[in-house]
Amino acid sequence: MTRVFDRPEEFAETAIDGLVASHRQYLARVDGGVIRSTVTPENQVAVIIGGGSGHYPAFAGLVGPGLAAGSVCGNLFASPSTSQVFRVSKAAQRGGGVLLSYGNYAGDVLHFGEAERQLNEAGIPTRTVRVTDDIASAPLDQIEKRRGIAGDLTVFKVAGAAAERGDDLDEVVRVAEKANLNTRSLGVAFGSPTLPGAEEPLFTVPEGQFSLGLGIHGEPGISEHDMLSAKEFADLIVGKLLEDKPEAAGTRVAPILNGLGTVKYEELFVLYTHVERLLVEAGLEIVEPEVGELVTSLDMAGLSLTLFWLDDELETLWSAPADTPAFRKGAIASRDRIDESEIAAALVVETVDSTPAQQAAGSVANRLIEVVRATIEEHEEEFGRIDAIAGDGDHGIGMRRGAEAAAKSARESVELQRGVEQLVELAAENWAEKAGGTSGALWGAAITAVAKTLSSGEQPTAEQAAAAARAGLKAITDLGKAEVGDKTLVDALVPFVETFEARAAAGDDVATAFTTAATASREAAAATSELRPLKGRARPWPRRASATRMREPSPCP
Amino acid sequence: MTRVFDRPEEFAETAIDGLVASHRQYLARVDGGVIRSTVTPENQVAVIIGGGSGHYPAFAGLVGPGLAAGSVCGNLFASPSTSQVFRVSKAAQRGGGVLLSYGNYAGDVLHFGEAERQLNEAGIPTRTVRVTDDIASAPLDQIEKRRGIAGDLTVFKVAGAAAERGDDLDEVVRVAEKANLNTRSLGVAFGSPTLPGAEEPLFTVPEGQFSLGLGIHGEPGISEHDMLSAKEFADLIVGKLLEDKPEAAGTRVAPILNGLGTVKYEELFVLYTHVERLLVEAGLEIVEPEVGELVTSLDMAGLSLTLFWLDDELETLWSAPADTPAFRKGAIASRDRIDESEIAAALVVETVDSTPAQQAAGSVANRLIEVVRATIEEHEEEFGRIDAIAGDGDHGIGMRRGAEAAAKSARESVELQRGVEQLVELAAENWAEKAGGTSGALWGAAITAVAKTLSSGEQPTAEQAAAAARAGLKAITDLGKAEVGDKTLVDALVPFVETFEARAAAGDDVATAFTTAATASREAAAATSELRPLKGRARPWPRRASATRMREPSPCP
Repeated sequence: MTRVFDRPEEFAETAIDGLVASHRQYLARVDGGVIRSTVTPENQVAVIIGGGSGHYPAFAGLVGPGLAAGSVCGNLFASPSTSQVFRVSKAAQRGGGVLLSYGNYAGDVLHFGEAERQLNEAGIPTRTVRVTDDIASAPLDQIEKRRGIAGDLTVFKVAGAAAERGDDLDEVVRVAEKANLNTRSLGVAFGSPTLPGAEEPLFTVPEGQFSLGLGIHGEPGISEHDMLSAKEFADLIVGKLLEDKPEAAGTRVAPILNGLGTVKYEELFVLYTHVERLLVEAGLEIVEPEVGELVTSLDMAGLSLTLFWLDDELETLWSAPADTPAFRKGAIASRDRIDESEIAAALVVETVDSTPAQQAAGSVANRLIEVVRATIEEHEEEFGRIDAIAGDGDHGIGMRRGAEAAAKSARESVELQRGVEQLVELAAENWAEKAGGTSGALWGAAITAVAKTLSSGEQPTAEQAAAAARAGLKAITDLGKAEVGDKTLVDALVPFVETFEARAAAGDDVATAFTTAATASREAAAATSELRPLKGRARPWPRRASATRMREPSPCP
Repeated sequence: MTRVFDRPEEFAETAIDGLVASHRQYLARVDGGVIRSTVTPENQVAVIIGGGSGHYPAFAGLVGPGLAAGSVCGNLFASPSTSQVFRVSKAAQRGGGVLLSYGNYAGDVLHFGEAERQLNEAGIPTRTVRVTDDIASAPLDQIEKRRGIAGDLTVFKVAGAAAERGDDLDEVVRVAEKANLNTRSLGVAFGSPTLPGAEEPLFTVPEGQFSLGLGIHGEPGISEHDMLSAKEFADLIVGKLLEDKPEAAGTRVAPILNGLGTVKYEELFVLYTHVERLLVEAGLEIVEPEVGELVTSLDMAGLSLTLFWLDDELETLWSAPADTPAFRKGAIASRDRIDESEIAAALVVETVDSTPAQQAAGSVANRLIEVVRATIEEHEEEFGRIDAIAGDGDHGIGMRRGAEAAAKSARESVELQRGVEQLVELAAENWAEKAGGTSGALWGAAITAVAKTLSSGEQPTAEQAAAAARAGLKAITDLGKAEVGDKTLVDALVPFVETFEARAAAGDDVATAFTTAATASREAAAATSELRPLKGRARPWPRRASATRMREPSPCP
């Protein structure tokens, strides 16, 4: 279990602070993650990696020359937000474009995907390579659906090495995709991690058994079996990986034997003696193996083996020097440190000029957001209780944190005399980021869409308000793909928007139309047995121990 | 718990094989441990480190340019034997002498100490610096009695850096001693490791509590407390370390925050944010901190903080480049690989010329050793049962493994026509090495002493045989310091030797004197309630789960 922490909800952020504090020669802290603290040549492609926290050295421990340019760090086992990905990428990019690379999980796909769009829109050429190495997560003919586990190291390493030698973005993307297609992993799990403050582990594996293919956040595996000897584990895992050999596979392979947390080094080394023997018996040449903790899941008891199939090009890139906190190869000459004050300055949001009317509307929006925050705070427990029935019970805490961040941002915007559009846009970004998870992204997108539709800064007509509501709904369904009847918030939003539009068309004023629409929405929601966030469609992780049950650390003895 | 293994008794050896297999660019395997696989400049002092296995990256993961020249690898949590230390040192030394450096534990002191004597005798100048960083293990005015924990890294690193820049043995010893005097550590433990195949953990810490100062093999701590927050842990540990500040301490310090196995990286990073703050608040300058897993105890749940107090000289050596499997700093140019076949050749024991009479006596000794082996095998369970009452129950398995190794070595010596002296000497070495622990060392020393006293190769007289028995007893009491009445094997050996001497003086032949002495010994042993190895005085580790209860891994599903 996780034992050393202060407030559980600050654990992931503080861990990144401590990582940076103890590795200043490698890392600089930026809001949302870390970037290199050393000077990177201009026009080098920036390989930006990331995902949830709790997997050290993935991902922030892999930032440095020859590997990643930056890492976006989400909450524990949760995708980072779009704005985090955007900010880290913007801070790290050197003019050569950005490659976003991450494990293939729904939440990450959602947020990195949206950030890719925003980065390109902002004039920073950005591409994506998702890692899909876990052979337990989908059959070979659906390789694009596979999850990413410890094999992400091969993709990051190859992309980073290509960037380091000066390849352009197209070329970095090409070799990264090739690395991914030549990487296969399979894991086994014996026991679950326990999140800080949680009373229960994330999942369980029966005593004396192991789960084959169980994912690094408890995603379902293939099967459960009685324990094996080290030799038998090697036979099983190597056998299955060799059955799934890539089409282009030659006779050279880099094995990566990874411990997930509490399967320790000596056990991995014992297992590796068998892995090596089996690969040699299969006629393969072993190139620069790695054995250790490369992608962990806090204190999860498990291990995985990755086979990275090499040709000349991939071998050159795999063997190239790299210098990061947790992964080093060869020798890289020491580099000058960047001026860290410049990073923060580059990420400061400038206040856009606005009219007095837009500022007055911003003030109204600020008060509205405060009402939303207070309402959510009042109902936080209820949200958690409902969510705990079908999901992981963290919807209340997520909504509260999102609303608090939005309200704080809105207050600041009023002080800085921002207009309504920028105020709501920043509030939406903060909501998405701090609420986390899929529902954070959905609310962030909805609020942004509403703000853009209302951006004239004048008092909206009922038609304009209805159009804004429609835009918010569209943003949610575009992202989450839910339809009426899926028992999601769309079931309540659709009658709200339709009633609002009808009443506006009938000549009601904004307040009347809004009130009637809200009543229709409540009635529709009551007609469904349960109202919950869009988890069925876009939830990145399986259920985890309820965040609402988190405890404070015990007081001093 | 430890889950991935084959035969528990082969676990430690196989782990070293796997470590070497996955790090051939750094390590070469030698019988007894590892040495660098890269060429080291001639006349460089060889820093040889070591101790029990189960602490990776300590010790074999710290071998490479700028750090150790070799590591001696004992069984799990058990000191290596004298002959292992001797062989690894001999294989690694480059003509500049050897520094033996290890944590201050009785078993290691015994075996490294004897190896130091033998190496000097063999013309290899050898010195010792023991690490005594654990402030929980003895008060400051008895610093020489303190145990070594994660602070051994500072001593090894400083010694290795001094050797790398070409310092001579005196100078390497001087800076290593200085590093040790300026290193202080304190650990806390939450839970125990479980050895491969063992049913019980080594020790327990009550649920929801932690033990302050508990040692890395379960040695007693200072006190037990209710759990703390990360901030409170930092206050406690930093506070106690600052109270124990070395006399010569300046204002610069290198902190090492070490996880023992299942306290994971994120927890260490969270804790480090507080450690850094407290050190800065204390007016200290932080130099090149380390946060990670540097000395583990299999899957033990615990952590330690080391403060290494630096002056200019120590800072230079701490910051110098090093390149090993688990610890890297700066950049070291790649080096040529050694020819590994030469290592094995250098360690082959040459057969000493002997007379036919000596060979015939060797043949008799071989048969005698085989009788001893068979007798021990027959009583293995009984040895274990007796030992389990007062100790850890592994005496039976240890004695069997020692006797088997001795018998195998003796058979080979007969085939190679070795004389009795060399045959018994090699058998004794093998016994000591494979039996492990303190009793292995005691039996090894005793048999060696017997062999040297009988080395004429002629049929001994009763007086000569009695003198040999006396020499064996003396070797045991010299090493173990036990006296009659301590309830050790000395209680049975003293009457044996005294009776043997009396009967020989009275004119009995060897066989009669032996038989009478054996009877006296049995009677003396029966008069004590319990007979056990010399644990009370020279046992290096606390009790562990009984090795006689080790299980084989379950069969395939």
